Amino acid sequence: MAKKKPLVGAAVIGQSGGPSAVINASAYGVIKTALESDCITKVYGANHGIVGILNDRLMIMDEEDPQELELLLHTPSSALGSCRYKIADPEVDDTDYKRILEIFQKYNIRYFFYNGGNDSMDTCNKVNRYLQKVGYECRVFGVPKTIDNDLFGTDHCPGFASAAKYIATSILEVARDCKVYDKGMITIVECMGRHAGWLTAASVLASEAGDGPDLIYLPEVDFNMEDFLDDVIRVYNGQGSCLVAVSEGVHYADGSFVSEAKTSGTDGFGHAQLGGLAARLASIVKAATGAKVRGIELSLLQRCAAHCASATDIEESFNSGKIAVESAIAGESGKMVGFRCDRKNGYVCHYELFDLEKVANFEKKVPLDWITSDNAYVTQDFVDYCTPLIEGEPQLRYENGLPRFAKLKQVFEK
Amino acid sequence: MAKKKPLVGAAVIGQSGGPSAVINASAYGVIKTALESDCITKVYGANHGIVGILNDRLMIMDEEDPQELELLLHTPSSALGSCRYKIADPEVDDTDYKRILEIFQKYNIRYFFYNGGNDSMDTCNKVNRYLQKVGYECRVFGVPKTIDNDLFGTDHCPGFASAAKYIATSILEVARDCKVYDKGMITIVECMGRHAGWLTAASVLASEAGDGPDLIYLPEVDFNMEDFLDDVIRVYNGQGSCLVAVSEGVHYADGSFVSEAKTSGTDGFGHAQLGGLAARLASIVKAATGAKVRGIELSLLQRCAAHCASATDIEESFNSGKIAVESAIAGESGKMVGFRCDRKNGYVCHYELFDLEKVANFEKKVPLDWITSDNAYVTQDFVDYCTPLIEGEPQLRYENGLPRFAKLKQVFEK
Repeated sequence: MAKKKPLVGAAVIGQSGGPSAVINASAYGVIKTALESDCITKVYGANHGIVGILNDRLMIMDEEDPQELELLLHTPSSALGSCRYKIADPEVDDTDYKRILEIFQKYNIRYFFYNGGNDSMDTCNKVNRYLQKVGYECRVFGVPKTIDNDLFGTDHCPGFASAAKYIATSILEVARDCKVYDKGMITIVECMGRHAGWLTAASVLASEAGDGPDLIYLPEVDFNMEDFLDDVIRVYNGQGSCLVAVSEGVHYADGSFVSEAKTSGTDGFGHAQLGGLAARLASIVKAATGAKVRGIELSLLQRCAAHCASATDIEESFNSGKIAVESAIAGESGKMVGFRCDRKNGYVCHYELFDLEKVANFEKKVPLDWITSDNAYVTQDFVDYCTPLIEGEPQLRYENGLPRFAKLKQVFEK
Repeated sequence: MAKKKPLVGAAVIGQSGGPSAVINASAYGVIKTALESDCITKVYGANHGIVGILNDRLMIMDEEDPQELELLLHTPSSALGSCRYKIADPEVDDTDYKRILEIFQKYNIRYFFYNGGNDSMDTCNKVNRYLQKVGYECRVFGVPKTIDNDLFGTDHCPGFASAAKYIATSILEVARDCKVYDKGMITIVECMGRHAGWLTAASVLASEAGDGPDLIYLPEVDFNMEDFLDDVIRVYNGQGSCLVAVSEGVHYADGSFVSEAKTSGTDGFGHAQLGGLAARLASIVKAATGAKVRGIELSLLQRCAAHCASATDIEESFNSGKIAVESAIAGESGKMVGFRCDRKNGYVCHYELFDLEKVANFEKKVPLDWITSDNAYVTQDFVDYCTPLIEGEPQLRYENGLPRFAKLKQVFEK
């Protein structure tokens, strides 16, 4: 690790992209460690990520009640607010960067932590490059988050395991429900994942626990509707029920999303369909089989279910933020905290720093050899990979039967 | 309570209708108490409710591992299998009743417990009347279950509170997610409840906890699309986001379900729509506002989320089954176990017996004076009613990060 002198100045953390059940645990790792540090003079939360910096909307974390901050460990969504702002390339348009520099100078910000997924690591990397170019001394760190689990380099991403645990738990429960009647039923559960099938694959853990999907379809391979219908009908005829987990991002061989393809069914008008992929596939399966078919879309539920988060994920998310701050103080910059994991003799997670330059904008997908040859299930390799990540249940604080989430005062810098 | 001599013979329990997160807790209350009773010689589980009796498919509960049976307290869905079999009126067609009598005589069944909702209480009542008419001595008991909370007489129904807790928890989490961006969003969450709005009303508890729906629509009152759009636009314009909870059963003044009405929108062809009410309303709101709109259907998730059940509900459900057996042994028959609750000085639940004759086929709805005058929210009366019911978190057994549900051997009587 580099051995530079700590910079003395303020720190800012921003959150960006789709939230997760544990992104606030990472933010808390950053905030708590920064607040406890001697060289960090003030800790800001950027309201709505980089947009909050551009708009000079900084919340003073030093003003918050430590007990409320601690609740961030179990509070879903992005407590500081998120954004989907695509920052320009600094070589093409440096307006935003000049503004960021202006704000950083105004508050003497010497530490910048950005908490998000692929796009956020890209933003983080660009800010870092610009600040280096103009010679403004600031330690820049990516703190990863994405339920999609598609960040390059790291074994897995904070947020993935909690969504995976929720998906496996929910499908384990739904599997019991949809096989309960004397008459059979086909159930299709849609999981998030536009380009990477990690979340959908996690449904297999329900099968490992006794009741899960019979068929699993990921976007890593082409989807073939005829094969799909053959698979479903075979399972349904064999056991009187069929449970399918499918990724929202499944696509035909020509690359078009199944969820967006024009209807080729009875009406043929190609009207935009209501509902998502699950509803569409349910309709097609119903037409093909005459069976009772139900589509279930896990929607936002799967990315904000703090009540069903993985304790392992919470701990690792917190540590990601903590290590980012510690590493920045120690002189590192332009890095993202990631994981290297050992599963041979019990699960061990080692923390490593990855160059932002290498992480940004590269999507990590489920290895093709973890998908069975019929493209309709995943292998034991995936089970071994994912099982330790969902270990442990969160110890939430409850009030009146419901989780008590953090309520921040949100004191803004004037 | 009647003081008849206990009957000596076998007992059978069946489960019927839509399952819940705690219907097995009730079944366990029946099974455990019956197994421990001296006068009950054998305990059967009817596979798929009354259909299992008609088909002579009886599972011997005495053969099950007591530790697995205990896991029924936290196992969702109907472990014995369910059915939606509508039994004929015995005065019109007594074929099924003769068959039931035959089976009861074959195994010397002297106790019949039926675990379900409105239709199941009706079945239970008809079986009781028939057995009385033909002079076959058998104690018949309804053990209530319905997430819909629409059984007459009782303060609330086992199963409702767990679904309510899941709905409130999920909406509390989703509310944080769908307000996270710098750009606003409208979110529409569809809850179960075809004729009664209890479950949808429970979403208000999320608002009480800090983040919940801005608008709530129940099927107890007529739905007006113009008023709905006005409400949503007003909230959205005022605060930049809007979260709606709506019951699947909302209907227009003419009684037609909003979810089934023909499209009057752009295409006008009236094609059958994919997806449910949430998707349909989302589409209409999107067309009217241009805002980002997302529909979420809680679907089966809300009725099988054992991992998020109410500990109060689990306890009351178990006790319902237990008291049914104790009362039957003491000589009662033709009754359903229900609750009378005191909320004045802390919540106290008293168990009472209700005549099946009065319970069957009468739907209890949310009182109209618990719905605000704009038909778009519920009052403090509902909050006071529902809050104590969702108290307490379940202590599930976990294996590999997932709940360990009961795995029954299912030893069938030959």
